[in-house]
Amino acid sequence: MQTSTPPLTKVLRQRRQQLAQSIDFPVLLSSGQPKARNFPANTYPFRADSHFLYFAGLPLQDAAVYLEGGKLTLFVDEASPESALWHGPTPTRDAIAQEIGADSAYPLSELLDRTKPEQLEQSVAENVRLAEAIVQVRLVHDDWAIAQMRQAAAVSVAAHKAGMAATAAAKTEADIRAVMEQVIMARQMTCAYNSIVTTHGEVLHNPHYHHPLQAGDLLLADVGAETSSGWASDITRTWPVSGRFSPTQRDIYDLVLAAHDACIEQAQPGVEYRDLHLAACRVMAEGLVDLGILQGQPESLVEQDAHALFFPHGVGHLIGLDVHDMEDLGDLAGYAAGRKRSDRFGLGFCGLIAHYKPEWLSPLSQVFTRFPVFCTIRSDRPSHS
Amino acid sequence: MQTSTPPLTKVLRQRRQQLAQSIDFPVLLSSGQPKARNFPANTYPFRADSHFLYFAGLPLQDAAVYLEGGKLTLFVDEASPESALWHGPTPTRDAIAQEIGADSAYPLSELLDRTKPEQLEQSVAENVRLAEAIVQVRLVHDDWAIAQMRQAAAVSVAAHKAGMAATAAAKTEADIRAVMEQVIMARQMTCAYNSIVTTHGEVLHNPHYHHPLQAGDLLLADVGAETSSGWASDITRTWPVSGRFSPTQRDIYDLVLAAHDACIEQAQPGVEYRDLHLAACRVMAEGLVDLGILQGQPESLVEQDAHALFFPHGVGHLIGLDVHDMEDLGDLAGYAAGRKRSDRFGLGFCGLIAHYKPEWLSPLSQVFTRFPVFCTIRSDRPSHS
Repeated sequence: MQTSTPPLTKVLRQRRQQLAQSIDFPVLLSSGQPKARNFPANTYPFRADSHFLYFAGLPLQDAAVYLEGGKLTLFVDEASPESALWHGPTPTRDAIAQEIGADSAYPLSELLDRTKPEQLEQSVAENVRLAEAIVQVRLVHDDWAIAQMRQAAAVSVAAHKAGMAATAAAKTEADIRAVMEQVIMARQMTCAYNSIVTTHGEVLHNPHYHHPLQAGDLLLADVGAETSSGWASDITRTWPVSGRFSPTQRDIYDLVLAAHDACIEQAQPGVEYRDLHLAACRVMAEGLVDLGILQGQPESLVEQDAHALFFPHGVGHLIGLDVHDMEDLGDLAGYAAGRKRSDRFGLGFCGLIAHYKPEWLSPLSQVFTRFPVFCTIRSDRPSHS
Repeated sequence: MQTSTPPLTKVLRQRRQQLAQSIDFPVLLSSGQPKARNFPANTYPFRADSHFLYFAGLPLQDAAVYLEGGKLTLFVDEASPESALWHGPTPTRDAIAQEIGADSAYPLSELLDRTKPEQLEQSVAENVRLAEAIVQVRLVHDDWAIAQMRQAAAVSVAAHKAGMAATAAAKTEADIRAVMEQVIMARQMTCAYNSIVTTHGEVLHNPHYHHPLQAGDLLLADVGAETSSGWASDITRTWPVSGRFSPTQRDIYDLVLAAHDACIEQAQPGVEYRDLHLAACRVMAEGLVDLGILQGQPESLVEQDAHALFFPHGVGHLIGLDVHDMEDLGDLAGYAAGRKRSDRFGLGFCGLIAHYKPEWLSPLSQVFTRFPVFCTIRSDRPSHS
């Protein structure tokens, strides 16, 4: 399934050349520094800046790359002799430069002299052009990126299978989260985002995981691995704690699965994201009417955004080096030139639950307040296929 | 073993009263905000500021407390209605205020009006007095703190036992780290610091964990749990991958254990930290001479800091709400008034390996370059006792 990929240096040079075709000014990208947790020496695990990772390839700390006309100049300091005692041997600057195909490499102290800082003081217009140029390059994933994301996804699948297998013997949500993250750590990966493992999937980003597991509960797990060079995966699955769905749970699960499969079926070059989202909404509205939870004509309910009561977010999001890829650039990556985020309740994905009209809901719908229909649409499909 | 503890509100009020006895000006403590990982919405797990936790008790986000004359005013916003959809129900401001024994509570927007900011612009001298006052209170752990640290330590012990039990079937350092951190997460705790799990314990803070486990290796695990309210534990153990030490490994292990036990035996009220450290150094120097690794008179070797070649750090450190407690205040907490950090190689704990004299080392010592004597002194003792 995995395509063969060219050496990293060739991939990185291609990315830099692509960027150079869109801009005519130099760019300095910094990798960033570890961030303090409770005191300066006790840091969170370091995560390099995604734009740096895209063009420089390695998760270096305290490094910068200067890109000009497709050429890369690396600025990084070599470790001090005392550092080896505390942190072990580290590659030399030259070895790093060779690995990432740098055209030249210098200590950080030479950064100001060599990068003509007056050229780097970009105007607002240049900043927007730079962001647009980066979006243009990063939006189409090369084979290297796809291979990395396949590796991350494979580890996430293993984590989800381990979580399912551990459910019968587990006592709390925390037991399952711990089993799933264990798989990710044992494979030398990190979590691409804070895991959600909850019997209260109706809360979209539920941060708690202390509840006991009880027969009759549905357990939602939103857990994704990230490779050591930063490429993300993002998988959500819902399964019954007892190992068997109740008839009603099965109805809802099948409906979410049908919406998921409809999107995959319609995903083709040229199809717009908005149309995939609306396809999912129509399947959901039809199914909820069939189940007697919504009342009215499905098409009309979708036009009025009634589905958004149960599905208040988008059908998906960009993914790549960020689990929400390039979200640091606002809506630039997610919306094509000339497009902007919809103001509609059911299309803007902002979850303003206050908009609902009581006449949409049948009395039966009260039964479903504890059902995690929310959120599970993203990728809720049996992973043992 | 665990002492009964008074309700949290009573403990917090006592701490605030103690602080009020040392300072005659008001103090504003902020809890902090989650820190971005690769983009603003993808944050690291939130860790509240330790001084805030000490006096306010709960790991609130985006909150502040104003302390004046032993009274606490809480400033925190209530969650918006939309927040419940994304993050679930949250306690009201009044419920939080009651839990921490606040004397009054307001929205963040009232902070400036109610705290007389001109009084909070402290002089450098007042800042130092505040830091000294906080050190004075936090340096002596109350029963609540000790109970929390006992809970953290119990979970760390469980993690270490799980790591030992998993070693026979494990293939890599990562497998063991994952098993150990699984135990901590399943018990609703976090790691107090980035775990070190390595067959290269001679590197003090080895960040890597990809090496395969091989018969003959010693595995060093430095892994500690932290309770949900921030209290830390810190345990390091070393065990043989094969399940049995070689005779030489056993000699080194026993020597480290002897130094450890000598420190515990001598730890009494009134004994100085420096004397405990020197006791460990003497045991190490004697043992290394007995084993033929160092040559010379043990007392003289310690005076010349020869032991520091194998033991370049301190015998321990403060622990509490930070794994290195109050390290954010520099040396204020670790050194009593009028004392300062030693310039001596073997007492300053700065690990300047360049100071060594070749005549200290016997030819035999070359054999030991791969032995993790470094670091294991901190608490290397069989935990199955």
